[in-house]
Amino acid sequence: MPTPTLPDDAASLAPAEARALFRGGLRVPTSGVSAGYAQANLIALPRDWAFDLLLFAQRNPKACPVLDVAEDGRTSAPLFDGDLRTDLPAYRVYEHGRLVAETTDASEHWRPDLVSFLIGCSFTFEAPLMEAGIPVRHIEAGTNVAMYRTSRPCRPAGRLSGPLVVSMRPVPADRVADAVRITSRYPAVHGAPVHVGDPAGLGIADLSRPDYGDPVEVRPGEVPVFWACGVTPQAAVTASAPEFAIGHAPGHMAVTDARDADYQVP
Amino acid sequence: MPTPTLPDDAASLAPAEARALFRGGLRVPTSGVSAGYAQANLIALPRDWAFDLLLFAQRNPKACPVLDVAEDGRTSAPLFDGDLRTDLPAYRVYEHGRLVAETTDASEHWRPDLVSFLIGCSFTFEAPLMEAGIPVRHIEAGTNVAMYRTSRPCRPAGRLSGPLVVSMRPVPADRVADAVRITSRYPAVHGAPVHVGDPAGLGIADLSRPDYGDPVEVRPGEVPVFWACGVTPQAAVTASAPEFAIGHAPGHMAVTDARDADYQVP
Repeated sequence: MPTPTLPDDAASLAPAEARALFRGGLRVPTSGVSAGYAQANLIALPRDWAFDLLLFAQRNPKACPVLDVAEDGRTSAPLFDGDLRTDLPAYRVYEHGRLVAETTDASEHWRPDLVSFLIGCSFTFEAPLMEAGIPVRHIEAGTNVAMYRTSRPCRPAGRLSGPLVVSMRPVPADRVADAVRITSRYPAVHGAPVHVGDPAGLGIADLSRPDYGDPVEVRPGEVPVFWACGVTPQAAVTASAPEFAIGHAPGHMAVTDARDADYQVP
Repeated sequence: MPTPTLPDDAASLAPAEARALFRGGLRVPTSGVSAGYAQANLIALPRDWAFDLLLFAQRNPKACPVLDVAEDGRTSAPLFDGDLRTDLPAYRVYEHGRLVAETTDASEHWRPDLVSFLIGCSFTFEAPLMEAGIPVRHIEAGTNVAMYRTSRPCRPAGRLSGPLVVSMRPVPADRVADAVRITSRYPAVHGAPVHVGDPAGLGIADLSRPDYGDPVEVRPGEVPVFWACGVTPQAAVTASAPEFAIGHAPGHMAVTDARDADYQVP
């Protein structure tokens, strides 16, 4: 069976349709796919590490807003009526904190003791940004969002610690306030930016060299705006070396059955 | 040393002063104490149950908004610069879901494997209610708030399940909307009511017989208003029978060092 391709109208795919394409082997970043539906980061850890991860999320809610949890033995969740092992475009597999595999199908790596956490993703508020006329460069360019490990430590929990990871979008200076206002209405998917301008203040030396995803152009008159990112738990896995973990490949998210609007506050 | 008494100006006690009185043996409900400071429910469970409790809280956020967690071996927390074993007015000790002791000092029952969860308490928004001229009957009467086990099940998590517990305050019919508006600004301390009027809709047969705390008069022209309550984890302990648990005695809360205002959203 040939690997499926992403249709031109990816934004109008139903979540189950998008998941079927990914299950079939399609590997693409999911920004812009199934517009109007929330996307989520995945981090799956052995049951013995599940409390540490959930406490890490509770202590770092901007980076790790938990949308749903599939307990050990489960591979779907109320928010995700698919198979967590196969229905994301790509996965990263870690052993003792080291990346040992990147794959479009995590079935052969999956363990029955894994607890899966679905964590809010800022792709969720990109549709509202674009509706307000704020350009989202990586969607225009057809690339993955740029993500950076920062010098800002997360608050540790049990055996887990690590740096805050952020995503960056260039925003025209006269629309930064609007971008703050719009995204602050979505606290469950990272909410308002954690940092506006001044990459050095986050310990980012070179915007053109993201730690995850693809670089994007920051044009004259634009300001780099940084949102907390759900790759943060994977940075904690790298730093803290649990025996085993599976995460999504950054930018290659779980497309959920929840509506963006479900996460909007007044 | 004689047991201390509550001063007339209990509202103006600093949190550390209130905790010292409770540590000395004073046993009173804490509604109205240290006005302006957040109060919290306590539930402490063995480490082996900690993930189930934290997941239960994540799945039932109206009833169980987690403000802070003291990991096993710790008896204080950033929000509570005191001793969790002694500095609440009263505790309840459970074995296999049965209440086996009620005490003003939990030291002799404490275990090193207990993980302590501080959960938001609706006493926190009583000061803003009163500032808006909405009477809080149990404070006027000097009694404990009325709390009820409802017929509404919480969403289970692992081995934990149980009913939603609510607190009730009678509110004049023409101030119900204001009470909703004011309390909805405090989502971390239960937020807006879960139910207004119609006790039978929650399975409450007789308002004059609360399951926890003291009954209060509902006067003509007043409506019983129900908020989710942080005693809910103790109802789950009763229903789910973990080997061991310690909670606060309902209404006898942890007075924290956090300001009410810290939990207010726009």
